[in-house]
Amino acid sequence: MVGNARDEDKLESGFDHEEEGHNNDNENKEKKGGEYGMSVEQMFEGRQVPSWRNQLTMRAFGVSFVLSILFCFIVMKLNLTTGIIPSLNVSAGLLGFFFVKTWTKLLEKSRLLRQPFTRQENTVIQTCVVASSGIAFSGGFGSYLFGMSERIAQQSGDNGGFKNPSLGWIIGFLFVVSFLGLFSVVPLRKIMIIDFKLTYPSGTATAHLINSFHTPQGAKLAKKQVKTLGKFFSFSFLWGFFQWFFTAGEDCGFANFPTFGLKAFENRFYFDFSATYVGVGMICPYIINISVLLGGILSWGLMWPLIAKREGDWYPAGLSSSNMHGLQGYRVFIAIAMILGDGLYNFIKVLAKTLTGLFYQFRGRQALPIANQHSPDTSEKLSYDDQRRTQLFLKDRIPTWFSITGYVTIASISTIVLPHIFHELKWYYILVIYIFAPTLAFCNAYGTGLTDWSLASTYGKLAIFTIGAWAGQNGGVLAGLIACGVMMNIVSTASDLMQDFKTGYLTLASPRSMFVSQVIGTAMGCVISPCVFWLFYKAFHDLGLPESQYPAPFATVYRNMSILGVQGFSALPKDCLLLCYVFFGAAILINCTKDMLGKKWGSFVPLPMAMAIPFYLGSYFAIDMCVGSLILFVWQKLNREKADAFSAAVASGLICGDGIWTLPSSILALVGVQPPICMKFLSRGTNVRLHNFLKP
Amino acid sequence: MVGNARDEDKLESGFDHEEEGHNNDNENKEKKGGEYGMSVEQMFEGRQVPSWRNQLTMRAFGVSFVLSILFCFIVMKLNLTTGIIPSLNVSAGLLGFFFVKTWTKLLEKSRLLRQPFTRQENTVIQTCVVASSGIAFSGGFGSYLFGMSERIAQQSGDNGGFKNPSLGWIIGFLFVVSFLGLFSVVPLRKIMIIDFKLTYPSGTATAHLINSFHTPQGAKLAKKQVKTLGKFFSFSFLWGFFQWFFTAGEDCGFANFPTFGLKAFENRFYFDFSATYVGVGMICPYIINISVLLGGILSWGLMWPLIAKREGDWYPAGLSSSNMHGLQGYRVFIAIAMILGDGLYNFIKVLAKTLTGLFYQFRGRQALPIANQHSPDTSEKLSYDDQRRTQLFLKDRIPTWFSITGYVTIASISTIVLPHIFHELKWYYILVIYIFAPTLAFCNAYGTGLTDWSLASTYGKLAIFTIGAWAGQNGGVLAGLIACGVMMNIVSTASDLMQDFKTGYLTLASPRSMFVSQVIGTAMGCVISPCVFWLFYKAFHDLGLPESQYPAPFATVYRNMSILGVQGFSALPKDCLLLCYVFFGAAILINCTKDMLGKKWGSFVPLPMAMAIPFYLGSYFAIDMCVGSLILFVWQKLNREKADAFSAAVASGLICGDGIWTLPSSILALVGVQPPICMKFLSRGTNVRLHNFLKP
Repeated sequence: MVGNARDEDKLESGFDHEEEGHNNDNENKEKKGGEYGMSVEQMFEGRQVPSWRNQLTMRAFGVSFVLSILFCFIVMKLNLTTGIIPSLNVSAGLLGFFFVKTWTKLLEKSRLLRQPFTRQENTVIQTCVVASSGIAFSGGFGSYLFGMSERIAQQSGDNGGFKNPSLGWIIGFLFVVSFLGLFSVVPLRKIMIIDFKLTYPSGTATAHLINSFHTPQGAKLAKKQVKTLGKFFSFSFLWGFFQWFFTAGEDCGFANFPTFGLKAFENRFYFDFSATYVGVGMICPYIINISVLLGGILSWGLMWPLIAKREGDWYPAGLSSSNMHGLQGYRVFIAIAMILGDGLYNFIKVLAKTLTGLFYQFRGRQALPIANQHSPDTSEKLSYDDQRRTQLFLKDRIPTWFSITGYVTIASISTIVLPHIFHELKWYYILVIYIFAPTLAFCNAYGTGLTDWSLASTYGKLAIFTIGAWAGQNGGVLAGLIACGVMMNIVSTASDLMQDFKTGYLTLASPRSMFVSQVIGTAMGCVISPCVFWLFYKAFHDLGLPESQYPAPFATVYRNMSILGVQGFSALPKDCLLLCYVFFGAAILINCTKDMLGKKWGSFVPLPMAMAIPFYLGSYFAIDMCVGSLILFVWQKLNREKADAFSAAVASGLICGDGIWTLPSSILALVGVQPPICMKFLSRGTNVRLHNFLKP
Repeated sequence: MVGNARDEDKLESGFDHEEEGHNNDNENKEKKGGEYGMSVEQMFEGRQVPSWRNQLTMRAFGVSFVLSILFCFIVMKLNLTTGIIPSLNVSAGLLGFFFVKTWTKLLEKSRLLRQPFTRQENTVIQTCVVASSGIAFSGGFGSYLFGMSERIAQQSGDNGGFKNPSLGWIIGFLFVVSFLGLFSVVPLRKIMIIDFKLTYPSGTATAHLINSFHTPQGAKLAKKQVKTLGKFFSFSFLWGFFQWFFTAGEDCGFANFPTFGLKAFENRFYFDFSATYVGVGMICPYIINISVLLGGILSWGLMWPLIAKREGDWYPAGLSSSNMHGLQGYRVFIAIAMILGDGLYNFIKVLAKTLTGLFYQFRGRQALPIANQHSPDTSEKLSYDDQRRTQLFLKDRIPTWFSITGYVTIASISTIVLPHIFHELKWYYILVIYIFAPTLAFCNAYGTGLTDWSLASTYGKLAIFTIGAWAGQNGGVLAGLIACGVMMNIVSTASDLMQDFKTGYLTLASPRSMFVSQVIGTAMGCVISPCVFWLFYKAFHDLGLPESQYPAPFATVYRNMSILGVQGFSALPKDCLLLCYVFFGAAILINCTKDMLGKKWGSFVPLPMAMAIPFYLGSYFAIDMCVGSLILFVWQKLNREKADAFSAAVASGLICGDGIWTLPSSILALVGVQPPICMKFLSRGTNVRLHNFLKP
C-alpha cells in the first residue's frame, strides 16, 4: 500500500478514483500499532524530538538539493515526453534515507556525529524534495509555460502571440507566484489536520514509510530496498547510455524499434524500450495502464485511420502532419474534450464532497459519512499517539498575522511585476485571481485531504477559459495560459503544503520546520526547474515537435484550450465539434458508470483521463507501461510478498536511472558530441534501393 | 557432472583434456550406490529386463526418428556456422524420456499400455538418436563433403576440381561407408567393456542419466528439467522468429548488431544475439570459451590488423576479402597450422596411452596406472552390479562370423561403388584404407574409452594428407577429401558404437539391441542428414561464403588442407609459412605446458584447437559463448545446486529452440517469403547521406 502511494497532484489532475479506500487502510495500520503490540509513538517514546530549528539541518538541505536536481530531471523528462508523472515519494524517501544514513554512519565511525538522524529530519528532506520537484510540474514546462512559445504557436496555427522561454523571466515568474499558495493555507492547518482530521492518503503513506525506516526492522528492509533501487538504477542508466550510441540521426535507435512491424509502427504501436515508462507502469495501478492502452487502440488503431480516409472531405488534403486544421486537430481537440469532460465531472464531484464535508464539520462537528471520523467527541477519547502528535503539532505556532502579511505582500509584488513580464496580462486580471485564490486553494487542500486528489490543473483550466474569454482577441490566448500558471501554482502548492503538514503531524515534525522546509524547497525548485528545462530546451532542438523524442503533448493541449477559450468552436475542423461532444459526454458517462458500479466492478471501468493521453501521442508508452504491469503481475503471482516489498524500489530505480541519464545525454548534445551509429529500420523495398545507392 | 557430459567426438576432435577426471567421479557415484544405500542394480532388481527384441519397440524408433530430425537440424546449423558442436546427449536423453513417458502415460490412462517404458528402451532411443545425428557430423557437411563443392573451390582459388553436392550421391556415399565402422569393432566389445573395463566417460554419464530417470526421484527431477528445457526452447524459438522479421537483406538484423561499436564490428567483435551459442557456452567448460575468446582477440584484434598493414608488401593489394592469396590465406593457413599442431600432439599422446594400455592389458592383465583398474583379480571380486551387468551383457551374443562377413561384404560393395561416384578416387586407395581401417577404428574406440576423446577428424586429416599426396596433381585434392570422409565415418561410428555398448552395459540393455539400434540410427542419419543439408543448401544461397550467415568454416579449412597435401607449401602467401611454423610449434608447446603443469594449473592453459576456430571466423560466437559462461558463472554463485541441476536443460533448450527455428526459416526462404524489415546499422556519416537520398 505504502509502496504504491501516489501524489495525485502530479498525475495531471489525477486518475485514481479509488484512493478514498486508503483512509480505512491507513487508519487500520495505525490502530494495529507497530511491533510488539505497541503503538507507533510508544515505540518512538525513548527518542527525543529535536526542536524545530534542529530539525532543519544543513545536511538535510544538502541532500534535498541533490535529490531535487535528480527529481527535477525525472519530472521534466516525464513532462516533456507524455505528461504522465507517477508518485516519486517512495524513491525520494528511500534515497533521502540512504544519503543521510550513509553520511551519519560515516560521521559516527569517525566520531564526528553531533546530531543523530531523526525521522523529523527525514520528513524535512521529503518535504523539501517534494516541494522542489513540485515546481517542475506546476511550473508548466510541459504545459502552459511552454505552450506560450513560438514553436507551439506555429503548430497550433493561431496568431494569438507567443512568448519564448527564457531563463530570466521564468525564474522571476515562478518566484512571484509560487509562495502565495503556502501563505494562503498556513492559518488553516489546525482546522484541517487536528479538527477535521483529514486523511491526506499520500501524506499519511509517506509518514508511515518514514516512521518504518526508523524502526530497526524497517531500516533493514529499507537498506535492501535501497540496494534493489541502486541495482535497477544502474541497469537503467547503463541501458540509456547503451541506447544512446545507436541514435545518430532521426528515427534511429531503440526508441523507434518497430516491435510489431512497420505498419503498426506508423500508427505508433511499438515497444520503445524506455525503462522509465516500464517503471511508471509498475507504479501505476493496472487500470490506468489498461486505460491508456485502450485509448491508444481506440484512437490510433481505429479512429485516426478511419478519419484519415476522409482526407480531402472532412479536412483539406496534403496538410503537414502537425497542422491543426488536419488530422492533428482531431487528435488534439478530441483529447481536450475528453480531459475536460473528465475534469468537469470530477471537479463537481469533489466540490460537492468538499461542501458537504464542510457543512457537516461546521454544523455541530458530528459524525459524518467520511471515514476517519470515528470519535464524535474528539477532545476526550484521543489515543496516546494522537495526544502526543497533537501536543507537538500545536507547540510551534505560526502566527496568523505572519501569513496574512506574507500573502498580501507577495500578492502586491506579484500584481505589479507580472504585467511587466506579460503585457497581455492586465493587473486587474491578477487582482481578481488573487482575491479568489485563497478560497480555491482551501477547496483544493480540503479536497486533497479527503480524496488524495489534487485538482490543480482543473483549476488552471478554469482560469484559462475565464481569463482567456475575458481578455478576448486582445492577447487572450497568452493571458489565459499565464492565468492558468498563476492559479495552478497557488492551488497546487497549497495542497502540497497541507499534505506535508499531515506527514509532519504523524512523524512529530514541527509545523514550523515543515513550513520553512517547504519555502526553501519551493525556492530551490524555482531556480532548479527553469535551469533543467533550459538545458533540455537548448540541448534538444526538436523539443515540442509532435514526432520528436520530447513532444511535450500538454503544451499543445493547453495552448489549444486557450485558443478554444478565446475563439470558441470556430477553431475546430469539420465534424470535429460533434466528435468532441461525443467524447466529452462519453467521459462523463464513463465516470458516472464507474461511480455507480461501486468499488468492485467500478475498478474495471477505464479512466477517461488516462485514455485521452494516447489520443495525441500514440500507444508506444502505453505498451511500455503495460509491460511494466505485466512484469509486476507475473512477479506478484510468483512471490507476492517480495513483489509488494520491492516493486516500488525496482520501478523507482528504472525511472531514476533513465531520468538521470538525460543529464549526461543533454550535456553531450549541448557540447556537440553526437552518437556514432544509427540503428535504422527500413522496409525491404527501401533497403534494396539503399543497398544500390550505397554500393561503391 | 552428468549434466555436462560431452560427446567429444563431435567437438571437432575434442577439446576437453580433463575428461579423464570423470573416471573416478563416475566410479565413486556408482560405488556410493543409489538411494537408501542400495547399489544401482539392487534398486532396479524388481524390474524385469525385457528380451532384446522387446527392447526394440516401434515407439522407440518413432521417437528416435523425430528427435533425429531435430538434432540433425541443430548439428547441421552448428556445422555450418562455426563447427563447434557441444554434446547433445543430455537433451536427447531428456527429450526421449519426455516423449515416451508422455506417450506411455496417455496409453496407461486409456488402459492400452502393453509394455511399460524401461530404461533399456530409453537407451535404445539414446543410441539411435546419437547414431543418427552422428552422421550429420561425420558426413562432413560442414567439412570435407562441402569442401568438394565449386563454391569452396573458387574461394580457395585452386584448380583441383570440384564435385557439387547432390542428394543422390551423398546418400549413396553415406550408405556405403557408414556401416563399416560398426562391423569392424563389434567382435571386440567383450574385450573392451568387460575385460579392459574401459570407462567411456560420456557413455557412462549417459547411462547414469538414464538410470536416474527411472528411479522415482530421478523421474521427478527429469520432469522439472524437461519443463525448464521446454521453457527455454520456446523462448529461443520465439526469439529466432522475432529476429527473422528484421533480416530483410544483407547486414540486417540482430546478427549484425555492433554491440561494441562499428570499428569493433568490422573486426568481428560483437554480440550477435545467437541463443544457440549462448547455450553452447553454457555447456562447454569455461576454459574452452576463454580459449575461443583469446584466439579471437589474438587474431582479429591483433594479428590481422597488423598483417593488413602489409597489404601490397606481403600480399598484393586490392584482392577480394575471400581471396586465399590475400589476408584470407593467412587466416586459413595459420588456423590449419594450429589445428594440425594440436591434433598431432594429441594423436601421439592418445596413441601412446593406447599402446601402453594395451601393453599392460595383454601382459598379465595387471593393475595399470589408468583409473578403473582397481581390482587385479576381476573374475572373483565382482560387485553385485558388475555380476548382473556382465551376465546380461554376455547373454545375447553377436557371432564373430557375422561381423566379419558384414565388414567384407560392405567393404567390397564400397570399393566397387565409390570409384563410380568419385572418379578421382581409385579403387586401390579404398582398398588400402579398408585394410588399415579396422586397426585405426580399434585404436580410436580404445582411446575414446580411456580419454573420452574421439580423434576421428584427426584420422580423417591423416587420410587427407596421405591419399592426397599419393594421388598428387591428378585429382589429389578431391581424392584426399573423399578419403578423409571414408576414414572419418569408419573411425567415428566405431567409437560411437563402443560408447553405446558401455551405456547398454550399465543400463542392462542387450548388445544386440544396441547394435540394431545403432544400425537403424545410422541408416536414418544417412537419409535425414543429406536431406537437411539439402534444405540448407537450397534455402540459403550464400551458404559457405565467408561473411554469410552460414560460412561453413571447416569446409574451407579442409579443402585447404587437401591443397596443402597436394601442392605442398607453394600454396601459401609470403611469410605465411613462417607464421604457420610458429603457430604449429606454439600449439604443441601450449599442450606440453598444459600437461606438465598438472591438473590444477594446467586447467588454466588455453586449448590451441579452440583458439584456432576464431582465427577464421572472428570473435562474435566467442562473445556469445562467454555470455553463456558468464550466465552460468553468476547462476552458480547464486545457487550452485540449482545451476548444476538445470543449466544443461537451459542450455539444451536454447540450442534446440534456435536450431529448430532453422527449419521454418529455411522453408520460408525456399518458398520465397522474405522478412519485411531491415534493421540496419549505419555510421553517422552514411546515415546523413542516406537521409538526403531517401528524402522525397
